[in-house]
Amino acid sequence: MLLNDPSEPGGIEVVALDADDTLWHSEVFFERTQRRFTELVRRYVDHDVDVDRALFEVEHRNLGRYGYGIKGFTLSMLEAAIEVTGGAIGTVEIEQLLAAGRTMLDHPVDLIDGVDDVMTELAERGYRLVVVTKGDLHHQQHKIFASGLTDRFERIEIVSEKDPDTYRKVAASMGVAPPSFCMVGNSVRSDVLPVLEMGGHAVHVPYHVTWAHEHAQHNGDVPTLASIRELPGWLESRRGP
Amino acid sequence: MLLNDPSEPGGIEVVALDADDTLWHSEVFFERTQRRFTELVRRYVDHDVDVDRALFEVEHRNLGRYGYGIKGFTLSMLEAAIEVTGGAIGTVEIEQLLAAGRTMLDHPVDLIDGVDDVMTELAERGYRLVVVTKGDLHHQQHKIFASGLTDRFERIEIVSEKDPDTYRKVAASMGVAPPSFCMVGNSVRSDVLPVLEMGGHAVHVPYHVTWAHEHAQHNGDVPTLASIRELPGWLESRRGP
Repeated sequence: MLLNDPSEPGGIEVVALDADDTLWHSEVFFERTQRRFTELVRRYVDHDVDVDRALFEVEHRNLGRYGYGIKGFTLSMLEAAIEVTGGAIGTVEIEQLLAAGRTMLDHPVDLIDGVDDVMTELAERGYRLVVVTKGDLHHQQHKIFASGLTDRFERIEIVSEKDPDTYRKVAASMGVAPPSFCMVGNSVRSDVLPVLEMGGHAVHVPYHVTWAHEHAQHNGDVPTLASIRELPGWLESRRGP
Repeated sequence: MLLNDPSEPGGIEVVALDADDTLWHSEVFFERTQRRFTELVRRYVDHDVDVDRALFEVEHRNLGRYGYGIKGFTLSMLEAAIEVTGGAIGTVEIEQLLAAGRTMLDHPVDLIDGVDDVMTELAERGYRLVVVTKGDLHHQQHKIFASGLTDRFERIEIVSEKDPDTYRKVAASMGVAPPSFCMVGNSVRSDVLPVLEMGGHAVHVPYHVTWAHEHAQHNGDVPTLASIRELPGWLESRRGP
């Protein structure tokens, strides 16, 4: 097996990976909790009320205040539940929503199929690995530790926004120029477009569920893999003849 | 004015500063919100119930799950309010507690007296400054940005625990050995003892309110300043004859 040669011009040296829904399952737990939210709130509102829409709007207006993560999501669920029911929702349901948030935080880390093998293979091929994730510092650090993957990564970058400037800083902190940097993630908007904009490589590995706030319009000209298992082969194919 | 000489043996080169209640006011807003919590919950419980104790216990059992910060505090207030009232608390009060949490997050950054002058003076004297703070990534970044102090600091380290190992890593990331590193903060437990343990310098600048979870027993042999205004003089005095 040929090792990746970082001295090759334009060769990818650093592979950066998103965490939630790229390394492990996450959105599926948000979806499950949101179904519980809908079920609890439905007891108090007419059938034509769009309960999911109400939650989406509360999440949206709180995004600048709460940032990303389960705690902010739980607080937005509570606010939306009170708002959409005009205060009619009971303390019993509030308590159940609080418990649903705690259950999400306590859930064991569930690696996506292939992740463990692929991380090992990339490390063996000489790629330097870094995690770049948005979200809650405390919970993300807990998940990375619990994933058992900590020692594969040279750095863990928990960032508050994924924009071109953030990726420029991450590449610099790894000591490489953008053409030697490749980001891998499930969000075209957060993991692909801003990296292409700053001159790096990026590849989209879709997850079967996407958070409504992460949907992005794009021209379809984005490298996409069906599974993270295809990542080592794709990286090799970028090395040219 | 003599510049600090980092080549001097044992000289302090890096000054690390805690943020909440060291650079700006924070605990005072938690206290204010907790008084509101007590007032709202009191409507539903007998006068001999220790409402503050109930909140303390809920915060304590959630600390590993929520980490530090306002979002976790708000979630713990809601949980404690439902628990201590046996579910009797109304949706109106729940809504008011949610609003109190949002108010805390939205509050402008209020620098502690002297901080602005002292940061300028330390930078002029050649000290390299870094912020080391626990808490919520999103909110801490927002506050540092809003403080207007960003350009004084070489790095911002938002950490999930303040233990000797964390400080060892921060000193290493600044490229200095522990004897060239000095931490300044309002918590003996988080900002002083772990730094002394890893071989660095530390100085305690008490804030007039201390979070119950931060109280620590110590032998009184900790360098303490009455105000951050005394910091430049204290650092100079460490330089010896």
